[in-house]
Amino acid sequence: MTFGAGFDLGAALVFAVTGALVAARAQLDPIGFIFVACLTAVGGGTVRDLLLGRTPVFWVADPLPVAVAAGAAIAVFFTHYLLASRMAVIIWLDAVALSVAVAAGVAVAAASGHPVWVQVVMGVVTGCFGGLLRDVVVGEVPLVLKQGELYVTAALAGAGAAIVAREAVAPGLVPLAACTGVTFLLRGGSIRYGWRLPSFRARPPRP
Amino acid sequence: MTFGAGFDLGAALVFAVTGALVAARAQLDPIGFIFVACLTAVGGGTVRDLLLGRTPVFWVADPLPVAVAAGAAIAVFFTHYLLASRMAVIIWLDAVALSVAVAAGVAVAAASGHPVWVQVVMGVVTGCFGGLLRDVVVGEVPLVLKQGELYVTAALAGAGAAIVAREAVAPGLVPLAACTGVTFLLRGGSIRYGWRLPSFRARPPRP
Amino acid sequence: MTFGAGFDLGAALVFAVTGALVAARAQLDPIGFIFVACLTAVGGGTVRDLLLGRTPVFWVADPLPVAVAAGAAIAVFFTHYLLASRMAVIIWLDAVALSVAVAAGVAVAAASGHPVWVQVVMGVVTGCFGGLLRDVVVGEVPLVLKQGELYVTAALAGAGAAIVAREAVAPGLVPLAACTGVTFLLRGGSIRYGWRLPSFRARPPRP
Repeated sequence: MTFGAGFDLGAALVFAVTGALVAARAQLDPIGFIFVACLTAVGGGTVRDLLLGRTPVFWVADPLPVAVAAGAAIAVFFTHYLLASRMAVIIWLDAVALSVAVAAGVAVAAASGHPVWVQVVMGVVTGCFGGLLRDVVVGEVPLVLKQGELYVTAALAGAGAAIVAREAVAPGLVPLAACTGVTFLLRGGSIRYGWRLPSFRARPPRP
Repeated sequence: MTFGAGFDLGAALVFAVTGALVAARAQLDPIGFIFVACLTAVGGGTVRDLLLGRTPVFWVADPLPVAVAAGAAIAVFFTHYLLASRMAVIIWLDAVALSVAVAAGVAVAAASGHPVWVQVVMGVVTGCFGGLLRDVVVGEVPLVLKQGELYVTAALAGAGAAIVAREAVAPGLVPLAACTGVTFLLRGGSIRYGWRLPSFRARPPRP
Repeated sequence: MTFGAGFDLGAALVFAVTGALVAARAQLDPIGFIFVACLTAVGGGTVRDLLLGRTPVFWVADPLPVAVAAGAAIAVFFTHYLLASRMAVIIWLDAVALSVAVAAGVAVAAASGHPVWVQVVMGVVTGCFGGLLRDVVVGEVPLVLKQGELYVTAALAGAGAAIVAREAVAPGLVPLAACTGVTFLLRGGSIRYGWRLPSFRARPPRP
């Protein structure tokens, strides 16, 4: 298993849990849990593979990510009522999955021989589109576009860190760890301490 | 025409009618009817083809499904005001189209030589994504995720029935008929008699 | 650069501005501006390329459209507060981008040797899906489905005009100019003077 495939699998597991918890909020049945969990788990990597022309997409060749996502959905179905606050868990696990998925996206694009800027974009795409599909399908406001929070920014910085670490240190696990660390640090800091980029607020929204 | 292509065409026709009726609810003009009808008609099969790398997608090689969908949209445009309840017709025709599309998805994936679990997943994808795209684009709550109803479950059971019938009887029309029958029975029973899977309801939704 | 690629680039620029203005309405940060701008800019052409099997999609091979979209997003971020009415600018620039993108879609499908009806469909897809993705992701009512306005109709007429002009005059720039002109005329006339197709209004919407 390559690093890219390993990180894809890790991201699938954690994203699946967030998808299942969103299904819990929408009071779906067990198969609904599995549907949303799988969509979230493989959504970002699937969009990446389609854009790069890597078809059949990664999970058609290998049932493991789908099986892991389905298993996680069932586990969440039987345990989610134990959580005091589903929304907080969703947000934090989404941050973990984002961080791992960005690294997977960079690694897969690099392994396919694409230039550096494509690797960065595919890191962002892989990280952001799973959660985006989850939220759009269920009709929630996408986390990725929540105003005043770092999300795409964290993914972009993490993807950039992967490139820098690879050039400065060596290919392999170090750039992926750097990517995951930087993405999670920025996203987590934004959730916990309200870190944000400046934005113009001279006018009210949606006039 | 293969069985897969024939079922794709049948699903396109019925899905197109549901799309046109949704366009009627949104008071679109005739071209809007055609747009939503075509999106619904070929949406599920298109997502399946993209995931499997079968490009150009099925309707680019053959105008028939798009032509049928456009014709159905025009017919609905001139007749939909005759219906007493658009929503009931949409829900029941969507059940018919779902049942046929699941069979088409299984058949196409099988014809491409994919393993059994991919055939099942592609059955579900082909069945569910046309209606999902229709509802997301028009901004309605997706039928596929309506709480307390069998939808993905019906698709999954139908796809499983296709596999079982093929192994137990023979390839060809029997498995496809079994798939359509099981899917429609479960989906229809859910609409008419409220059949559902158990779900945890210990907590209120979306706290 | 082919005519198709040139029109793709022009559409990307103008669509990017509309995406950035939608990001401004949602009060996103600068990276959010870039994200929505890029999604809108390359969304329609990306869907077209996926459907036709032209992968990696057009902007993976050439960073220019993404770079132009990102630059436009930054420019809008620093200047959008100068606008008296963001919404009016969004609607009119969206009309310009639609007109150029339809021409790009027809040209790309023609260059790939697809039949005339596929060229028309790909013109409509390229024109409509960028704005559709923008609006669905941000949670606004899609401009493409706004009742009582020509949108898909304008795209369809423009794509038809491109085919007619190519057969009647010559291939090259003339059909693309005809396409852009017809699309913009119909869409603009609909915005400014309320041009519309007839629609049945015997019943209230969404009963």
